[in-house]
Amino acid sequence: MLGNFSYCNPTKLYFGENALDNLHTELKKYGKNVLLVYGGGSIKKNGLYDAVMAILKDEGKNVAEDPGVMPNPTIHKLYEGVEIARRHNAEFILAVGGGSVIDYSKALCVSVNSGDDDLWEKYFIRFEEPTCETLPVGAILTMAGTGSEMNAGAVITHPEKKLKMGHVFADEKIMPRFSIMNPRYTMSLPKYQMVAGIYDIFNHICEQYFSGADDNTSDYLAEGLMRSVIKSSRDAIQDPQNYEARSNIMWSSTWALNTLISRGKSGDWMVHMLGQSVGGVTNATHGMTLAAVSLPYYRFIMDAGLPKFARFAQTVWNVDPSGKSERELAESGLAAMESWMKELGLVLSLRELGASEASLDDLVNGTVVLGGGYKVLSKDDVRKVFADSL
Amino acid sequence: MLGNFSYCNPTKLYFGENALDNLHTELKKYGKNVLLVYGGGSIKKNGLYDAVMAILKDEGKNVAEDPGVMPNPTIHKLYEGVEIARRHNAEFILAVGGGSVIDYSKALCVSVNSGDDDLWEKYFIRFEEPTCETLPVGAILTMAGTGSEMNAGAVITHPEKKLKMGHVFADEKIMPRFSIMNPRYTMSLPKYQMVAGIYDIFNHICEQYFSGADDNTSDYLAEGLMRSVIKSSRDAIQDPQNYEARSNIMWSSTWALNTLISRGKSGDWMVHMLGQSVGGVTNATHGMTLAAVSLPYYRFIMDAGLPKFARFAQTVWNVDPSGKSERELAESGLAAMESWMKELGLVLSLRELGASEASLDDLVNGTVVLGGGYKVLSKDDVRKVFADSL
Repeated sequence: MLGNFSYCNPTKLYFGENALDNLHTELKKYGKNVLLVYGGGSIKKNGLYDAVMAILKDEGKNVAEDPGVMPNPTIHKLYEGVEIARRHNAEFILAVGGGSVIDYSKALCVSVNSGDDDLWEKYFIRFEEPTCETLPVGAILTMAGTGSEMNAGAVITHPEKKLKMGHVFADEKIMPRFSIMNPRYTMSLPKYQMVAGIYDIFNHICEQYFSGADDNTSDYLAEGLMRSVIKSSRDAIQDPQNYEARSNIMWSSTWALNTLISRGKSGDWMVHMLGQSVGGVTNATHGMTLAAVSLPYYRFIMDAGLPKFARFAQTVWNVDPSGKSERELAESGLAAMESWMKELGLVLSLRELGASEASLDDLVNGTVVLGGGYKVLSKDDVRKVFADSL
Repeated sequence: MLGNFSYCNPTKLYFGENALDNLHTELKKYGKNVLLVYGGGSIKKNGLYDAVMAILKDEGKNVAEDPGVMPNPTIHKLYEGVEIARRHNAEFILAVGGGSVIDYSKALCVSVNSGDDDLWEKYFIRFEEPTCETLPVGAILTMAGTGSEMNAGAVITHPEKKLKMGHVFADEKIMPRFSIMNPRYTMSLPKYQMVAGIYDIFNHICEQYFSGADDNTSDYLAEGLMRSVIKSSRDAIQDPQNYEARSNIMWSSTWALNTLISRGKSGDWMVHMLGQSVGGVTNATHGMTLAAVSLPYYRFIMDAGLPKFARFAQTVWNVDPSGKSERELAESGLAAMESWMKELGLVLSLRELGASEASLDDLVNGTVVLGGGYKVLSKDDVRKVFADSL
């Protein structure tokens, strides 16, 4: 745990099949004018919209709606939401959906009272903290993956500028005040989206784990989370209706990205940088872009972080170390990870996502290189990793 | 993660060698009249008292002192503190010390405005929640072990009634608003106290881990914490000044008992019940009472929770399962745990703590039997475990 750091995550989590019952108590704490934010309308099909509206009505709330939040919420949609929220004098934002809807709601909560400021420049280029009053946000989570339900992060896309920017706000009051997490809500998701989400979770943990030389408690917690995700993912692909498996995946997802396992760590995040570039070129599902570049990337940097990759093999994948050199052990770990990724049916090649040799220049140019991991990549290194991912 | 549960731990943790710097910012959030609570005065010897007083003065606080909190804070001391706090019109309680000082401060924060209520009956027998206004508590932690820095628990002793009762309050505002955690503060502790604290931490994890048949994420996190504590404890007994080791122990201690790894679990807590009875009879150090009864207890219940004990052997102690029956594997895990306890120099017999055959009746009668673990003990079972611990 070297270094100085702080930790504060006040979000109240309500977990389980009856979690929604707690919406009553929580709503009483906030003002009458509620803005209900959601996505493409799947909550209308599965009955969640009606259940939430009934509770809002029960609690005497005056509700305006901001529907249609897209998978990569845009800055234009954000301005639209600001208009709706201002017209409604919204006092509370209730986000019902996955990471995109919750991310968007957090961006909205800092924007409603930001006056005429250029929201893109202010929050997603200059990364300023809000000085205006922010609105409280509550969340009802319907997908596991991003961890947005218990952090202060918001990712917004500027489509014309082809930029997708994330801002982790400093003030914990930007985090959802509460999140309602019923694993049953995640069960209607198609298998492709389920496994993409599972890999997103797993990679969030890897990004934090594969950095640093110290013997940090965060690494041990990360290993526990990885083992849990591996076990539960194997159960969930056999039977997506396995409640225990889906609930462990949902809970692990929250703890994978709520800052706990990053304490005392520098963090790598290069798989996300490579994957975001792939997303810009192919518009593929986020988790699949990460899956396609992960093994080529980890094999490329493995020698620079050999002790950690050997530990990963033994602790996370139960590889027997006897008779193996440290390097062979490290390789066996990544081989075990590859087998698991195949079991899940994850995308392991950029070609499957629509990229080709002709995309290489765009992929390389779209990649931001960070410096927190075991190796800092040159442009040529980035090109090599992408070429290996084809 | 079966079942419905909630999680909310808003305590802000400041960790590291410069953690105390953050006291300035935090104090600005609270009123002028501060009650400074501490124990036997070791903070006066190591300079912490002076450093804290200087910051309190800097922030213009009006300070009253409530020193002399004992290792097992009594109900009489609590009444004394209430008097001091009322006379001072205290608006904020600053606890500087280990778990006893912080526990006591939480009991005090619900008691100051409780009027003429019988505090013992109200909070530690009837376990009522406070309906009065409570005072905010901040903590500066000087010992790792109890987890009091990030939970809402308080243990108070009634010496005449020979009762030591713990109340985990429901409202998260009873948790310290912030805790300052500098691992250096823990380094002046004698080795006996250090290893007793380490075993207390380890056993907090065991108590939550050894319950339930489900495949809960909490178990995987618990295994990560146990592995971290084992590794760091081995480094710390070689060199108690190993900052990295002491910092991992301090951080693990917080997460071992802040409710995270109990989510979705029933919890056993029988080692603590047995240990508390030993404490009542011998007045021995808490962690050592747990150490003395643990192996006899776990060996006694092992067959009732065989799959979990076998998993414990493999995952926590890296026991090679090949050629072993499940039972042999489970036994090997407890043998590995025994070796580790010997390495640390933990007390493995009640005789060392001053108990004998003559104490058995008192020990048995002083034990509260709980029902959340793998086996519910009869009185005869309890006697057998104590007899095996002699």
